[in-house]
Amino acid sequence: MTKVKLGPGTFVCPKPVFLVGANVDDKPNFITVAWGGIACESPPMVSIAIRHSRHTFKGIKQTGNFSINIPSEDIVVETDYCGIVSGAKVDKVAACRFDVFYGELINAPMIDQCPVNLECKLVHTIDLGSHALLIGRVEEIHVNESCLTNGRPDVTKIKPFIYSAGSSNQYQAFGDFIADAFKAGKVLKNNEKP
Amino acid sequence: MTKVKLGPGTFVCPKPVFLVGANVDDKPNFITVAWGGIACESPPMVSIAIRHSRHTFKGIKQTGNFSINIPSEDIVVETDYCGIVSGAKVDKVAACRFDVFYGELINAPMIDQCPVNLECKLVHTIDLGSHALLIGRVEEIHVNESCLTNGRPDVTKIKPFIYSAGSSNQYQAFGDFIADAFKAGKVLKNNEKP
Repeated sequence: MTKVKLGPGTFVCPKPVFLVGANVDDKPNFITVAWGGIACESPPMVSIAIRHSRHTFKGIKQTGNFSINIPSEDIVVETDYCGIVSGAKVDKVAACRFDVFYGELINAPMIDQCPVNLECKLVHTIDLGSHALLIGRVEEIHVNESCLTNGRPDVTKIKPFIYSAGSSNQYQAFGDFIADAFKAGKVLKNNEKP
Repeated sequence: MTKVKLGPGTFVCPKPVFLVGANVDDKPNFITVAWGGIACESPPMVSIAIRHSRHTFKGIKQTGNFSINIPSEDIVVETDYCGIVSGAKVDKVAACRFDVFYGELINAPMIDQCPVNLECKLVHTIDLGSHALLIGRVEEIHVNESCLTNGRPDVTKIKPFIYSAGSSNQYQAFGDFIADAFKAGKVLKNNEKP
């Protein structure tokens, strides 16, 4: 294929859309974060990248705790809003009419309207430059009962979405089934040389 | 909403699907990784979580370099295969008929059949337990010329896919447009209290 060099940059896809929560000066705040993912299986950990100046980061440093809330497409407007305004200036919870709840960690606020909520205890903060990478141990996962199938989270019921950046910056739904994971590749075992 | 506790765990969505490459004992190898994402904007960095025992990890430790290759749905079978067999036992490049190329980093192998390729220099290795979190500085991004629109990567041409785990483990395409990022939320500015 003819390849073009774009220079050093941050393009990968898909990117998730998390609403990261923290109490800042004892008040719940949420920021939209597309840079993050799972970091470890045992113990379960997640990572998120966040700019040093962010109001939510101030709260995470104050409390040592944060939450990851996975929005459904029903609240895509609220999710986008939390990424374009600062909690230092406006009350995002009020503007979005979020119902906030708490779990094991008494100061990691979670959003009832998000079908999946992870409570996380901050275990590492790595200053990488413009952003800090925060690594949190997942203390509990809360899921809407209505979003489970056979006791497991079902993306067709959660209706999460992707942040898709590049030639256009948009949120996209999950699309068509392509293949079964851990199965589709077995056919290539026939190609293995003895 | 009625919430159910799942206990500590690693569920988030969406998860990406990367083919992470490294030269192991001078031979290119690739592993499928769904746990990772962007870690910093400036300098541009990515993170991937990888089990200590993985053959590819051995190569990353040997060379200090790795690649992230973003597969299109055209090679979903090959992508799945690289996640279910070990490069210590089989030649994945041969079985998948990958065309391997190199860029700035002389020992970070990349897959020509993947429309997007990131060359990464390892800058941090954080042992978190079952997995190490590897942070790499992106030295160059290569994109198929045919996958650009106005000089930027276009996901409708790249045809990347999601790893969707939970009640079923499958790969899914990107789906319908939901909203414009950094725009849709502006309507909620009307809700802000003075």
